Amino acid sequence: MSHTIAVIEGDGIGQEVIPATVKVLESLDLDLEFVEGEAGDAVKAATGEALPQETYDLAAESDATLFGAAGETAADVILPLREAVDSFVNIRPAKAYPGVDAVRPETDLVFLRENTEGVYSGHEDDLSEDLSTLTRVVTTSASEKLAEFACEYVDGEGFSVVHKANVMRKTDGRFRDAVVRVADDHGVETDEVLMDAFATRVCLDPTQFDTIVCPNLAGDVLSDLAAGLVGGLGLLPSANIGDDNALFEPVHGTAPDIAGQGVANPMATVLSAAMLLNHLGYSEESDRVETAVETVLAEGPRTADLGGDADTDEVTQAIIDQL
Amino acid sequence: MSHTIAVIEGDGIGQEVIPATVKVLESLDLDLEFVEGEAGDAVKAATGEALPQETYDLAAESDATLFGAAGETAADVILPLREAVDSFVNIRPAKAYPGVDAVRPETDLVFLRENTEGVYSGHEDDLSEDLSTLTRVVTTSASEKLAEFACEYVDGEGFSVVHKANVMRKTDGRFRDAVVRVADDHGVETDEVLMDAFATRVCLDPTQFDTIVCPNLAGDVLSDLAAGLVGGLGLLPSANIGDDNALFEPVHGTAPDIAGQGVANPMATVLSAAMLLNHLGYSEESDRVETAVETVLAEGPRTADLGGDADTDEVTQAIIDQL
Ligand SMILES: CC(C)[C@H](C(=O)O)[C@@H](O)C(=O)O
Ligand SMILES: CC(C)[C@H](C(=O)O)[C@@H](O)C(=O)O
Repeated sequence: MSHTIAVIEGDGIGQEVIPATVKVLESLDLDLEFVEGEAGDAVKAATGEALPQETYDLAAESDATLFGAAGETAADVILPLREAVDSFVNIRPAKAYPGVDAVRPETDLVFLRENTEGVYSGHEDDLSEDLSTLTRVVTTSASEKLAEFACEYVDGEGFSVVHKANVMRKTDGRFRDAVVRVADDHGVETDEVLMDAFATRVCLDPTQFDTIVCPNLAGDVLSDLAAGLVGGLGLLPSANIGDDNALFEPVHGTAPDIAGQGVANPMATVLSAAMLLNHLGYSEESDRVETAVETVLAEGPRTADLGGDADTDEVTQAIIDQL
Repeated sequence: MSHTIAVIEGDGIGQEVIPATVKVLESLDLDLEFVEGEAGDAVKAATGEALPQETYDLAAESDATLFGAAGETAADVILPLREAVDSFVNIRPAKAYPGVDAVRPETDLVFLRENTEGVYSGHEDDLSEDLSTLTRVVTTSASEKLAEFACEYVDGEGFSVVHKANVMRKTDGRFRDAVVRVADDHGVETDEVLMDAFATRVCLDPTQFDTIVCPNLAGDVLSDLAAGLVGGLGLLPSANIGDDNALFEPVHGTAPDIAGQGVANPMATVLSAAMLLNHLGYSEESDRVETAVETVLAEGPRTADLGGDADTDEVTQAIIDQL
């Protein structure tokens, strides 16, 4: 079966790590067709729009999308793209790799972040000179959908439900109740942790947690916290999963300080592509790509962010050589 | 000048650390009058109300309040109490003390958390079987008031403004604009950091930051994250400051696992009392109390949470002996 992959480089090092990753994917000789789309600061400067309609449509119509990064326009690009692929969950693994400097090298977490609502639903109003409001939305249906996915994802293990229902009683209360109910129905164990307590506890001992199911903003902040514990955003992949469609992106941004020099680390994007392969049913190839990255991490070469002096091409070639 | 201090032990180790702290305050021979009020789980079980009106009134009418902790009813007690004292800012220092096991021993931060609005303003509605909303409120006036306080607090230094205005454009945009404008007017330097990026960066290197000014929930979560970096909530004090009134509380909770045994560490509450003394104008005594705690931390005795075997009374007496 042939798959169409939308490829959106975006800005900065997106223009380096995405072509590198496409090379890795091409070396697998699968029946993948890559179609390029444009988005980001440069497109906005040229056309007035950070995300042209045709890029939105491309993502919506492809089997999967690989996205790099956008600069100032990040929110204008990534939030509509997540919607274009109808993604209801953002999967964010945060795993410390051996040999990579980490505050908490024992960290191995996966965040399943609700990807459609919470404060991201975006109804804001200026009600007076002095006052603005934002309407935070939580539905049982979106919470249940996330929970169904989580139950399948954990494959017999339990998960933690992280929320702030002691303050956001109706909204996060609804979220918590729906998630726990679905988990109970599936015989999946859950433990509940308040969002603030989670922030303390994960620093003290990340091995207390495995899979974390949480609302949108909590997932944003707490997964970035976990990124801090594993040594930074540099290696972290992510997936936005919808029913018929999905988008994969490194967690890092455009890295303007090193963009254009050909020295960016492609690994977070390559690991995102491994998630893409798995999503399309190429689970054996997905494992091979992940293992290849781990081998290169262990044996080198390494880019500057990991203390090496290899460039993007050398690391990309080393990954391909390991496949 | 005589000051009336409302003293609310609450539940669990609140009933141990508050009396210990009152002993420390009494040993200073200042003109302080202590008046006890009740709140928390036990009061709710007995009377149906976690925060009786007379305790609310006591906090509102006293010059300052010292609060311990509440269990299940924490939100029902602390949120109205913060309102009773009209507090517009929650000051949360997170400093790693020498000799205390910390993930990031170089951490020395102070969070100035907006204390009246954001998601805490609490307008929630169940709009249908499926959907609940929460109205997040941000006003220019509350943001400016916090910023005015921050400018005075940092005393010539700059501060970081942490927000999520790339998603919450009108509400956090209003917050950011107001805070930065006030800082500019005072010639105070600011740098802006997105809330998620802050979570990563503070783990990687907490020395990048000093004073952080942020909305209510951001302050809740990010100060608890910082607590994780300094080794836990055990030593952290906090202050809720209003124009004519204030409330001081340890960041830790009721610690049900050790409550009733007389072995709780009183230091977070004693440090909260040091903030209280400073607030009432006893800055010399405030410094003495803080130094006494630091000396006992360095020389012992220590409670079990810090690897020692002293009980609450011994540590309290050691602090008093250092004054
Ligand atoms: C760019 C921004 C809108 C986005 C988010 O908040 O989701 C980013 O922080 C992320 O987590 O991918
Ligand atoms: C108990 C809870 C309502 C409270 C808060 O969210 O403010 C607590 O977490 C805190 O930070 O003091």
